[in-house]
Amino acid sequence: MAKINENYLKLKAGYLFPEIGRRVREFAAANPGKEIIRMGIGDVTQPLTPAVIKAFHEGVDEMAALGTFKGYGPEQGYDFLREAIARHEDQSRRVQISPDEIFVSDGSKCDTGNIQEVFGNDNKIAICDPVYPVYADTTVMSGKTGSCQANGYFEGIIYMPCSEENGFLPELPQESPDLIFLCFPNNPTGTVASKDVLKKWVDYAILNQCIILYDAAYEAYITDPAIPHSIYEIEGAKKVAIEFRSFSKTAGFTGTRCAFTVVPDELVAFDESGTPHKVKPLWMRRHTTKFNGVSYPVQKAAAAVYSEEGSRETKAVIAYYLENARIMLNSLQELGYTVFGGVNAPYVWVKTKKGLTSWEFFDHLLNEANVVGTPGSGFGPAGEGYFRFSAFAERANVLKAMERLKGLEYR
Amino acid sequence: MAKINENYLKLKAGYLFPEIGRRVREFAAANPGKEIIRMGIGDVTQPLTPAVIKAFHEGVDEMAALGTFKGYGPEQGYDFLREAIARHEDQSRRVQISPDEIFVSDGSKCDTGNIQEVFGNDNKIAICDPVYPVYADTTVMSGKTGSCQANGYFEGIIYMPCSEENGFLPELPQESPDLIFLCFPNNPTGTVASKDVLKKWVDYAILNQCIILYDAAYEAYITDPAIPHSIYEIEGAKKVAIEFRSFSKTAGFTGTRCAFTVVPDELVAFDESGTPHKVKPLWMRRHTTKFNGVSYPVQKAAAAVYSEEGSRETKAVIAYYLENARIMLNSLQELGYTVFGGVNAPYVWVKTKKGLTSWEFFDHLLNEANVVGTPGSGFGPAGEGYFRFSAFAERANVLKAMERLKGLEYR
Repeated sequence: MAKINENYLKLKAGYLFPEIGRRVREFAAANPGKEIIRMGIGDVTQPLTPAVIKAFHEGVDEMAALGTFKGYGPEQGYDFLREAIARHEDQSRRVQISPDEIFVSDGSKCDTGNIQEVFGNDNKIAICDPVYPVYADTTVMSGKTGSCQANGYFEGIIYMPCSEENGFLPELPQESPDLIFLCFPNNPTGTVASKDVLKKWVDYAILNQCIILYDAAYEAYITDPAIPHSIYEIEGAKKVAIEFRSFSKTAGFTGTRCAFTVVPDELVAFDESGTPHKVKPLWMRRHTTKFNGVSYPVQKAAAAVYSEEGSRETKAVIAYYLENARIMLNSLQELGYTVFGGVNAPYVWVKTKKGLTSWEFFDHLLNEANVVGTPGSGFGPAGEGYFRFSAFAERANVLKAMERLKGLEYR
Repeated sequence: MAKINENYLKLKAGYLFPEIGRRVREFAAANPGKEIIRMGIGDVTQPLTPAVIKAFHEGVDEMAALGTFKGYGPEQGYDFLREAIARHEDQSRRVQISPDEIFVSDGSKCDTGNIQEVFGNDNKIAICDPVYPVYADTTVMSGKTGSCQANGYFEGIIYMPCSEENGFLPELPQESPDLIFLCFPNNPTGTVASKDVLKKWVDYAILNQCIILYDAAYEAYITDPAIPHSIYEIEGAKKVAIEFRSFSKTAGFTGTRCAFTVVPDELVAFDESGTPHKVKPLWMRRHTTKFNGVSYPVQKAAAAVYSEEGSRETKAVIAYYLENARIMLNSLQELGYTVFGGVNAPYVWVKTKKGLTSWEFFDHLLNEANVVGTPGSGFGPAGEGYFRFSAFAERANVLKAMERLKGLEYR
């Protein structure tokens, strides 16, 4: 008799973003005349840049001819892309990563979930609250937790609350975790981590033999030169950190699909007897057995992000989104909202007014202003009473949304 | 302290294909003048067809403009592709699949591994021996097995030997499995399953409440109208079977990456108390949480396979590979080899001569004829003494390889 993985039954009703999609579809169906401005899912809106498109087409053309056609490629990515990534890390921030520590994949969401497979179910996971829901959901699916408690926390996960009081920066946990998910610039709060903050975590991980799973999907939005883009800018981090990076928010690849994960050669985890094992070959085994590489033309397109034109064009798009963030931050502050993030990050994190819950604010905003944002509580219990606005919108829509918020009434 | 998933330590040295790659690279480095003919990995060689290339370019162009740019798409695939698939199944073989039972992904290899996540580790898995190694490897990784025994079998997996005696068709297992992997046309033996054979399995699964994981990646190579392409051609199969399909071998997508998995709405698995749960929403949860959809231009390219030109062009490429298979089958028979498969399938399954082991034959062929094939033992212990030739080669190379085999001496 075929048996289900009962851990799936512990999950809450729906993954956050499909639930937002459902409510928006229902509203749109009931109000066909209303123009909805979508700032909910953190999804880019600006097209791929000319240099990227050119390389993408060239990649497709290669697939059309016998001499240049590409079948299965290396599962961990073509050398041309891994070498371009390694060179860029070295030149832009003097981080030394070898191409063979880089695993190209079809997305950081996939990688942050899949990485858990190479670690045993006896690991305790620490995550921030609020945070991108995939870390907790995939931890539950893998069987590392008990059931969901009344407070919204899963038994067996170590939650690290991030609040106005601690500047949305998690404190070192009381209980000892084995794997620690960190995400900076943070989704959803837009918080960034200074070198000192990251050093504290790296030192803690070295001391306690834990591994940091560092999600740096939004590093391209950092403009302050004092803020590290990569955890490997911190001494010793290669001993204890896996870093997730993506072309999604860096170069508009949310619908094109390309990302990469760095697993340093020296990073180890332990077996039951306490013997250390390198994690890189385990991830290599997982990657080559359960994945078949990213589409070749997509890898060509991704490599073009590192070309001179590609880099210049991409930076211009990021500057455009950051200007959106600045506009939202200022407008919301002027409207009397308490606002966080929005600098060095594409997300603005807003406290709801009048004590509305996050979903109440969501519905209010959707019904009254036809603006879609993301309920903070969808990112964890400590996100209750907050709301995330995404800067990945068209300028005209950002301005219109802020205008509509001016007229928003609270009964 | 971070702990590894110790199940990975149970796996044997290397996944088959990287090991072949390693030996070929070493030989090539030591023998720079020798022209190697690669018929090892089952990888296509013919370019994407003009209709597919045209749609691929159009998809890329859409990514270049504000009005047509695509960000995150539905994780389970765009409607245009899922509807094209459903329509094709209905029109070509009267199989009724609803688009919402279709989950587009980046590969069947990924899906056959990932599908196990929605089933508990208390499931017993049955697999054929020999067979595509991913089923066993991912079963081991997931923790459903004990260690590897001296005979090459993992404790806890039910192996179903396929040999010359049973026509390479597995018999119903003595011990009761919960999940049964079947693959027809078979990789590596090239065996196909008649309606009667599949009906036997579907009836068995219904009776025993098991689920069949049906890998039909090579269905496009079936030319005999009596042989089913899809397990859903068998009555009742939607109750008990998940089917994996791919554009890789159908349309040359091994480097382009697109596949789909069918999870019928009525398919159930059970919880501990024996209560049935639909599997489709579990897979939907997994797919939306741990995957982010296939690249949009790739989905456009895949949909073009179902267009009139796309379909005609694709069939011509398949006919080309099948003619390769026919040539190999005839040549090898003329050379006195005992040969199987090669009809309705792109693989020719050959018994080695002089009692050589599969890897001995591999090395002999590589060293003496500079031809690369796949050792049968890489697909499981019962594959020992056999060898797989792939028809996915250029005609000139097939002819040359067969010519070289004529001169092959056995000491």
